[in-house]
Amino acid sequence: MQDKQDNLTVAELMAELGRNARAAAGPLGIASAERKHAALIAMADALLRRKELILNANVLDVQAAEAAGTAASFIDRLKLDEARIRAMADGIRAIAALKDPVGEIITEWDRPNGLHIERVRTPLGVIGVIYESRPNVTADAGALCLKAGNAVILRGGSDSAHSSREIHAALAEGLTAAGLPEAAIQMVPVTDRAAVGEMLKGLNGAIDVIVPRGGKSLVARVQEEARVPVFAHLEGLCHIYVDASAELEMAKKIVLNAKMRRTGICGATETLLVDRKVAETHLVPVLSELAKAGCEIRGDADVCALYPQAEAATAEDWATEYLDAIISVALVDGIDGALAHINRYSSHHTEAVIAEDTGVVERFFNEIDSAILLHNASTQFADGGEFGMGAEIGIATGKMHARGPVGVEQLTSFKYRVRGNGQTRV
Amino acid sequence: MQDKQDNLTVAELMAELGRNARAAAGPLGIASAERKHAALIAMADALLRRKELILNANVLDVQAAEAAGTAASFIDRLKLDEARIRAMADGIRAIAALKDPVGEIITEWDRPNGLHIERVRTPLGVIGVIYESRPNVTADAGALCLKAGNAVILRGGSDSAHSSREIHAALAEGLTAAGLPEAAIQMVPVTDRAAVGEMLKGLNGAIDVIVPRGGKSLVARVQEEARVPVFAHLEGLCHIYVDASAELEMAKKIVLNAKMRRTGICGATETLLVDRKVAETHLVPVLSELAKAGCEIRGDADVCALYPQAEAATAEDWATEYLDAIISVALVDGIDGALAHINRYSSHHTEAVIAEDTGVVERFFNEIDSAILLHNASTQFADGGEFGMGAEIGIATGKMHARGPVGVEQLTSFKYRVRGNGQTRV
Repeated sequence: MQDKQDNLTVAELMAELGRNARAAAGPLGIASAERKHAALIAMADALLRRKELILNANVLDVQAAEAAGTAASFIDRLKLDEARIRAMADGIRAIAALKDPVGEIITEWDRPNGLHIERVRTPLGVIGVIYESRPNVTADAGALCLKAGNAVILRGGSDSAHSSREIHAALAEGLTAAGLPEAAIQMVPVTDRAAVGEMLKGLNGAIDVIVPRGGKSLVARVQEEARVPVFAHLEGLCHIYVDASAELEMAKKIVLNAKMRRTGICGATETLLVDRKVAETHLVPVLSELAKAGCEIRGDADVCALYPQAEAATAEDWATEYLDAIISVALVDGIDGALAHINRYSSHHTEAVIAEDTGVVERFFNEIDSAILLHNASTQFADGGEFGMGAEIGIATGKMHARGPVGVEQLTSFKYRVRGNGQTRV
Repeated sequence: MQDKQDNLTVAELMAELGRNARAAAGPLGIASAERKHAALIAMADALLRRKELILNANVLDVQAAEAAGTAASFIDRLKLDEARIRAMADGIRAIAALKDPVGEIITEWDRPNGLHIERVRTPLGVIGVIYESRPNVTADAGALCLKAGNAVILRGGSDSAHSSREIHAALAEGLTAAGLPEAAIQMVPVTDRAAVGEMLKGLNGAIDVIVPRGGKSLVARVQEEARVPVFAHLEGLCHIYVDASAELEMAKKIVLNAKMRRTGICGATETLLVDRKVAETHLVPVLSELAKAGCEIRGDADVCALYPQAEAATAEDWATEYLDAIISVALVDGIDGALAHINRYSSHHTEAVIAEDTGVVERFFNEIDSAILLHNASTQFADGGEFGMGAEIGIATGKMHARGPVGVEQLTSFKYRVRGNGQTRV
């Protein structure tokens, strides 16, 4: 690829990747489940066999990041070791073990004229994945797209370029071993930002959907500029509403977990709403648990009056995804107040209600338009693995095609097969 | 609205329509099935009650079209009479009778930790429908979007503006009678083409999906310019492949129906491929049936040699959707030749195979990526009603979200409802 780069513009190079991907999508779409499975197992094996090469490449990326004075948290995401390579290989094996979605009959029915109609799962086609520093996305995304019969074009961050290139070499080895086209999983060989722009334009119709994996600024750019569909969430501003009918012990336990288990994931709770009717009994115990765990609390005036240790929340707090040990807290007038607040500030990702009153739960479930709604459970369950859907390439908050966890099934489309015995239309 | 038009720019007016639609989508999305049903029945009644107003308005449209020297076929599509108004009302009643999709549990399962997960159908939100001269689309599209709980913004052609305005008034009456927001079904009150441009930009995020209903140039413009998802097909370049294993009588009957029943619909066959192995026995009988019915035949050199009445097809013919009594015909080398031809020229709409060899049928079904594939049946079955899916707003050839007939179910999205009893994530 290095020679080509010298002679082609980025646009020409990307167009060629698009053509290659589209050409690979044909045979890939009709490849047997066995062949795809074999390729995935061969990829996992190749990752382990090539681990020295990958670790050596990773050292180059980490050294460059350190030399540039990059933050420690960033370097932690970038850094590979033997355990992380093993985890990548295990992840690919887990994807291999999933049921192959392609060819699955989603539903079927008969018509009075004798026609038998089947709606059958097919690959989507070509997926573009744009990500940042985590080199493991190369393996995860490549494997998941392959399982669903899709070709994929991977565009990783320049910070992990050496690592991703070596991981990609292992994937390519697996594809070749199984007799699948190497262009089924392509890596963009240049770090030029213009390559991302070309992908967002869709490479002349070669890309069917774009999946961004990374921080808010990446996702925002992709959503803003993409001229093809995007599976993504910009943020997870998740709410928990504690109703007057909630069991206090359950509320304490769930809120603590939802906020503090891991504060940096999109399913972490950012805002707590407490029914004014139980403010005296429920608010302080729930907030004390959070404070004990090291959470900063920002409350509205009513909350601060009952719990003076809280800081005063500003208007901005209600619209902020902290991704940190901070929570905004408001008292609301029952389920109506909760619905009004959530429908105003929600990012349509995940919200939970703690309540024993089933009427309240049903209204919460019906009247909020978020991808995931939970009753008496932590928002941190917003995860494809936790849903039993297997690995996910991300979580989508849009309403077209995929919503919630985007797993192997969400990376498919469908077609109709109609079986007749001579039917003509009247 | 007339006053507003004078004071607002088109962009401002359209933005207001977008805000109104978004505001209506909230209550509409949680309206009960009974209320939506009542609104639809009231709309059908209002259409009949207001038929004189509608017919008078239609006279204005027809007179203007005649004065402009418009083609008779166009005026036929435009013209309403009592029977057509009755058909519109019946169409709305049929939509009312469909199962309400909102709230349907698509699938559900339990997790080992006791969480119960449901995937539940929800409305999509706001649909934009852009159409041309047929005034009945106002009623059909309005009713179908409402059934699925969506707000809709209708932009009809200027030629049918008077008729559509009166039909819309009847729909509005039905909404009001049932206590639903009038902005659930809005008509763009200006004929300015810039209004379409604003819709294609999505009205500041207010429109979730655009459905164009009309000729190729409208669909092409929408697909080219839309910055929101589009459910559409640009063309239906449908193929029939007659395999060596086909029963001749069935082939004659199906090809005749697929081409000639109605030549102007998107499911009409445009290209016939015949297995070279049965050219001597099957080609001439099939073509003679077509010729007897008045079909012009354009063949490749081999076809012309066996059937000298055929005209010579040009390269362009294989890529042409005639929508007329014309068919292009080629001999191919078995299923491999058929797949190669179809995968090169297909518009991914509908293709049929006539064959008794199940191996051939399975390859046809697996290796062609079109929305609808049929075995031993006419391509003219490519229709939501024929599929038993009820009324359709169109047929989509894209692979995202909706594919094939776009009925009430395809106008929905989904969300997850997760029921727990205190679960926290480890």
